[in-house]
Amino acid sequence: MAAEIERKFLVRHEGWRAAVSRSVPMRQGYLAEGNASVRVRVDETGANLNIKSMTLNISRLEYEYDIPEADAHEMLDQLCQRPIIEKTRHYIENGGHTWEVDEFAGDNAGLVVAELELSAEDEAYERPDWLGEEVSDDPRYYNVSLVTYPYRDWPDRKG
Amino acid sequence: MAAEIERKFLVRHEGWRAAVSRSVPMRQGYLAEGNASVRVRVDETGANLNIKSMTLNISRLEYEYDIPEADAHEMLDQLCQRPIIEKTRHYIENGGHTWEVDEFAGDNAGLVVAELELSAEDEAYERPDWLGEEVSDDPRYYNVSLVTYPYRDWPDRKG
Repeated sequence: MAAEIERKFLVRHEGWRAAVSRSVPMRQGYLAEGNASVRVRVDETGANLNIKSMTLNISRLEYEYDIPEADAHEMLDQLCQRPIIEKTRHYIENGGHTWEVDEFAGDNAGLVVAELELSAEDEAYERPDWLGEEVSDDPRYYNVSLVTYPYRDWPDRKG
Repeated sequence: MAAEIERKFLVRHEGWRAAVSRSVPMRQGYLAEGNASVRVRVDETGANLNIKSMTLNISRLEYEYDIPEADAHEMLDQLCQRPIIEKTRHYIENGGHTWEVDEFAGDNAGLVVAELELSAEDEAYERPDWLGEEVSDDPRYYNVSLVTYPYRDWPDRKG
C-alpha cells in the first residue's frame, strides 16, 4: 500500500520547457473503473499495472506492479477503453521536489498538467514561476477521465 | 497472454464430494469491471491479481500476476465491490482432467459450479455422473456477476 498525495496544476506559460531534465513518452490505457481505476502503462523503462482508488481527494490508495511488456501491449491493443492516452512526461527538478509535467497528444493534445507527489498533505513546496491554477480537485483532469471525456471536447479548454 | 477456455456446469447431486482430492478456501473481490474484470484473490498459496476480458465466450483473454498478500487484503477490505466472494474450491481428478468445483458461501451460499479448463474449444472430456447442465454461456455464473447479482437474489435458484 501507499497513500498517494498528488497535487495537479495547469501551467501559465511555456517557461517550464527550459527547466526539463528528462522527457519520457508513454502510452497508457484503462482496463476498467469502479471503486478503483486499473491502468496499463508502457514507457521506455518497461510496463506496469497501476491500481488507484477513485476517491476524489489529494490522497488516494495506490498500488503498482511491473508486468511483461508483451502483456501490456496486448491489453492496450485489445482490452483497454478507447482512446488510449498518449503523452510525454517531462521531469523538472525544483527546490528539492520533482515536478512531472505531462504534455498530452492525440485526443488530449493541448493539455499540459504539472504534478507533484508529496509525502504529506501539508508538505510545503516551491511554486515555480510557470505554475498555474491548482486542479487537484477537478475530476476532469484524472487521466482516467481523459479517456471518456478527452480535452478536445471541453468547451472551456485553454489550448 | 493466455486465451482461457473454460466450461462451467451445475452439479446434479452431491456425488462429487466423494471424489474431492483437495479443498482450498478462497476470498476474492473485484476492483472494477469494464472491457475487463479485475479480480483480487487470496488463498492458502498466496495472493494474485487476475485480469480477464468480459467477452461472453468460452474463450477469453486472461492474465494473472502474484501480488503481496498485504496489498490483496487491503484491496479486498477497502477497494473491492461488495459483497466479497467467499468460496471453497474442491479439486477432482477425472479422466486426465482436473475439475474445480466451487462451493460458494455468504450471499452466494447454495451455489455449486463445476469448472473445467481446456486447451481447445473442441477438446474432449469425460462427463462424471454428478455433472449437470452446462452454464458456460450464462453471464449470471461469472464470479464478477455474483457480486452485483448474488445467488441469494435469483428467483430460479436451485439451492
